[in-house]
Amino acid sequence: MIDLYTASTPNGWKASVTLEELGMDYTVHPINLMENEQKKPEFLALNPNGRIPVIVDKGNEDFVVFESGAIMIYLAEQAGQLLPTDSKGRTQVIQWLMFQMGGLGPMMGQANVFFRYFEEKIQPAIDRYQNEVKRLLTVLDGHLAHNEYLAGDYSIADIANWCWARTHLWSGVEAEDLEHLQRWMNQIGARPAAQRGAAVPGKLDTESLIKGARNIVVK
Amino acid sequence: MIDLYTASTPNGWKASVTLEELGMDYTVHPINLMENEQKKPEFLALNPNGRIPVIVDKGNEDFVVFESGAIMIYLAEQAGQLLPTDSKGRTQVIQWLMFQMGGLGPMMGQANVFFRYFEEKIQPAIDRYQNEVKRLLTVLDGHLAHNEYLAGDYSIADIANWCWARTHLWSGVEAEDLEHLQRWMNQIGARPAAQRGAAVPGKLDTESLIKGARNIVVK
Repeated sequence: MIDLYTASTPNGWKASVTLEELGMDYTVHPINLMENEQKKPEFLALNPNGRIPVIVDKGNEDFVVFESGAIMIYLAEQAGQLLPTDSKGRTQVIQWLMFQMGGLGPMMGQANVFFRYFEEKIQPAIDRYQNEVKRLLTVLDGHLAHNEYLAGDYSIADIANWCWARTHLWSGVEAEDLEHLQRWMNQIGARPAAQRGAAVPGKLDTESLIKGARNIVVK
Repeated sequence: MIDLYTASTPNGWKASVTLEELGMDYTVHPINLMENEQKKPEFLALNPNGRIPVIVDKGNEDFVVFESGAIMIYLAEQAGQLLPTDSKGRTQVIQWLMFQMGGLGPMMGQANVFFRYFEEKIQPAIDRYQNEVKRLLTVLDGHLAHNEYLAGDYSIADIANWCWARTHLWSGVEAEDLEHLQRWMNQIGARPAAQRGAAVPGKLDTESLIKGARNIVVK
């Protein structure tokens, strides 16, 4: 049994979609980011960086893992699924997972900050991040033009990038023109486990939120 | 034999320091970022994202790996060093590697963009990223207060975070007050393999560059 401390964000979904795809039992502990619960001492004891998601593996001596990318690799290795065991296959999955960890995720995060949350409207910063997000989505599109999934079979690399890419409208970036990306997003979005995982921790109607964001998309 | 396509940046050093620590034979192919060599077709054929570093493992059917974090894991697994083989030990190393990939690296990168390279001086953006860099360095400092290295023995997690953390002055962020971080930086900086790796691809006097940055440090 896994304890999952999470919130309804792309990084949170990376953990819950992985757990759903692996069919693992888990208990959700919602963390209220608006109330800064992730900065409270009891949470910082789990992750000194004060960020969701975090898991505690009750079946493995209460082993704690933070950083969504590390959680995904740990869970996939425990289950022996969604991550190949041969060196080349594994490396290609981890390579595209790192593309999300170091590229798509942080850049979409910054686009959201300046496009949505920053008090002051700073157009050069908005442009910088929206352009970079579009460039990264186009890299994915080019790769998906001749690959069904990012690295061989469906894997944690697809889950990680999908959890972020599907929110492109929230970052104010259109992707209608990226047909291979659209094909791949629809394919993953049709998976029941992906749908269940992306509804964790529930309540918040994230699908409407993402679709509703279209009104204020600027490009 | 490994072919390494790289430039004198923290992400480039992550690959060369790892290769030096593992004592692997490698050939350096410098990529001139000022001339956008990383966006030329022959480079994009190796990494469609147009970013250094990239390795080609000539001893493994010319296997190509991009994304510095994936390169480090691949090399460490090939050598059986710098990354534990037991599940918990591995996971903790990967967790702190992900902290650098998704946190310290992107945030220091953005601090550099707005503090150094952006035409317009946008103080709220400079402040945002410098504050976030300081916060992340403080998280490392807190963890290093009761751990010699980030995750058990010296590992790729230390290399990844060191390659970025050591350039904090270049991002305009002081870290004199973080004594545990300083102890750890000095300890790694004294390793001959780290010194050799951080001098790749050579020529550029990065040490002076980093120290010289102190003049314009703002906090």
